[in-house]
Amino acid sequence: MSFEAWGAVHTPHVNAALDQLCPADGSPLREAMRYSLLAGGKRLRPLLCIAAAEAVGSDRGQVLPAACALEMIHTFSLIHDDLPAMDDDDLRRGLPTCHVKYGEALAILAGDALQALAFEIAPTHTVLLARACSQMCLGQAEDLEAEGKVVTLEQLQRIHAHKTGAFLRASVVAGALDASVAQQAALAHYGEKIGMAFQIVDDILDVTGDDATLGKPAGSDLKHDKATYPKLVGLDESKRLARAAEQEALVALEIFGESAEPLREIARYIVERNT
Amino acid sequence: MSFEAWGAVHTPHVNAALDQLCPADGSPLREAMRYSLLAGGKRLRPLLCIAAAEAVGSDRGQVLPAACALEMIHTFSLIHDDLPAMDDDDLRRGLPTCHVKYGEALAILAGDALQALAFEIAPTHTVLLARACSQMCLGQAEDLEAEGKVVTLEQLQRIHAHKTGAFLRASVVAGALDASVAQQAALAHYGEKIGMAFQIVDDILDVTGDDATLGKPAGSDLKHDKATYPKLVGLDESKRLARAAEQEALVALEIFGESAEPLREIARYIVERNT
Repeated sequence: MSFEAWGAVHTPHVNAALDQLCPADGSPLREAMRYSLLAGGKRLRPLLCIAAAEAVGSDRGQVLPAACALEMIHTFSLIHDDLPAMDDDDLRRGLPTCHVKYGEALAILAGDALQALAFEIAPTHTVLLARACSQMCLGQAEDLEAEGKVVTLEQLQRIHAHKTGAFLRASVVAGALDASVAQQAALAHYGEKIGMAFQIVDDILDVTGDDATLGKPAGSDLKHDKATYPKLVGLDESKRLARAAEQEALVALEIFGESAEPLREIARYIVERNT
Repeated sequence: MSFEAWGAVHTPHVNAALDQLCPADGSPLREAMRYSLLAGGKRLRPLLCIAAAEAVGSDRGQVLPAACALEMIHTFSLIHDDLPAMDDDDLRRGLPTCHVKYGEALAILAGDALQALAFEIAPTHTVLLARACSQMCLGQAEDLEAEGKVVTLEQLQRIHAHKTGAFLRASVVAGALDASVAQQAALAHYGEKIGMAFQIVDDILDVTGDDATLGKPAGSDLKHDKATYPKLVGLDESKRLARAAEQEALVALEIFGESAEPLREIARYIVERNT
């Protein structure tokens, strides 16, 4: 089954659970939270969590709260990253960003409240989620600090590992907290590698994509004078590195049989996607 | 023992634990987190937590991580509330606010990372802390929304209950998660009442205090055209309401003996403080 077909089975359940776990309560704060949380998006992190659960013989129902917590933390980070003081982006998932729609104050608070809600709904995952969240904040700070500076490939990899890698890795591990140590180690390794591939492809798409397909402004990295893979090693080498990371991710899954097929499809999708 | 004497015993341990749990790591993000976290302050929330633990026969060591988590969440909320898009305050605890010192982007991220760190260090308290944190965000959003509007006493109480009340209540309850249901209910009731007293006195001090004593700009509520107790019911009635809330808090503690003396002293301190 392709990633698209597999994802189409699970995504409606993720969206329904997000809607239920963050219900409207009449407050403008909750409206702003729901605006960004339910704006669509690929739901990659929840799907990684569910795919990891399948790989180790669990099912979606067991990890749905954790899957939703991951998406809440991801959305919180997007809302804050888009703020004028940060990346200053007006468009996200094809819609005006949260602060454009609701003002900066409510956007900051919506992000804060989504982080809190994530912990509330998945308390068994607190330490995993909290550590990944800290890494993400660190990566965003490093990313902002590096703007306009000369950055080596090593430094770029470090920034990416913090900013997106740690959280994608945690998304995979979150689906298999009850699995054996060997399985968890394999999944963590897979998560690291697809995290790397994901960020390289993100950098590539910022150069080769267009606003309409991406749902956000292409060329944003250039505008902020950010270090990217295409800038440091060129477009062709970037594509080769993404493929190499995908291969390593697939090797990490060799201890699993057919149950890891969704994870394999996700690795392929991450490298082949155009959005 | 007076609150000051009792607090002087415990505060150094709280400060040392905060320093240890949020150690310097060379990153500017961590520096900004530590700048605000270790800037002093009354440590009222950790002390409430420790006093509640004493009341039910536990000791400081058992609740120190939770006490520190409370202070981290409190500090995160102060950093974000001080931002230009929110209350736009330049001075906090007698020092430049985090965004004045480190810029807005790092201040937003320092707040985010302090919230995450709080959950990481006190995972057994996740649900309690997360709910209180959500209420605090809601209260801050309601407070901003009410600026410049006509607000009734009932609406003001609702805003305060969310913005500061829920978190002070959680600070008390956090110290006694293993206590009996009756003890927890009494402590929750106490926490609600001192939360109310605290906010009334905060409103009073914004009128009667001065910048140097408060460590932040007096008259800030007036500047933002905020509804306050003195504005709605006058200064004398505000003081009477604060005393009444203190009395109710003390009544709630009647099921405890001498072990609750620190909690009683804190109730008195909250109403009599001038900072």
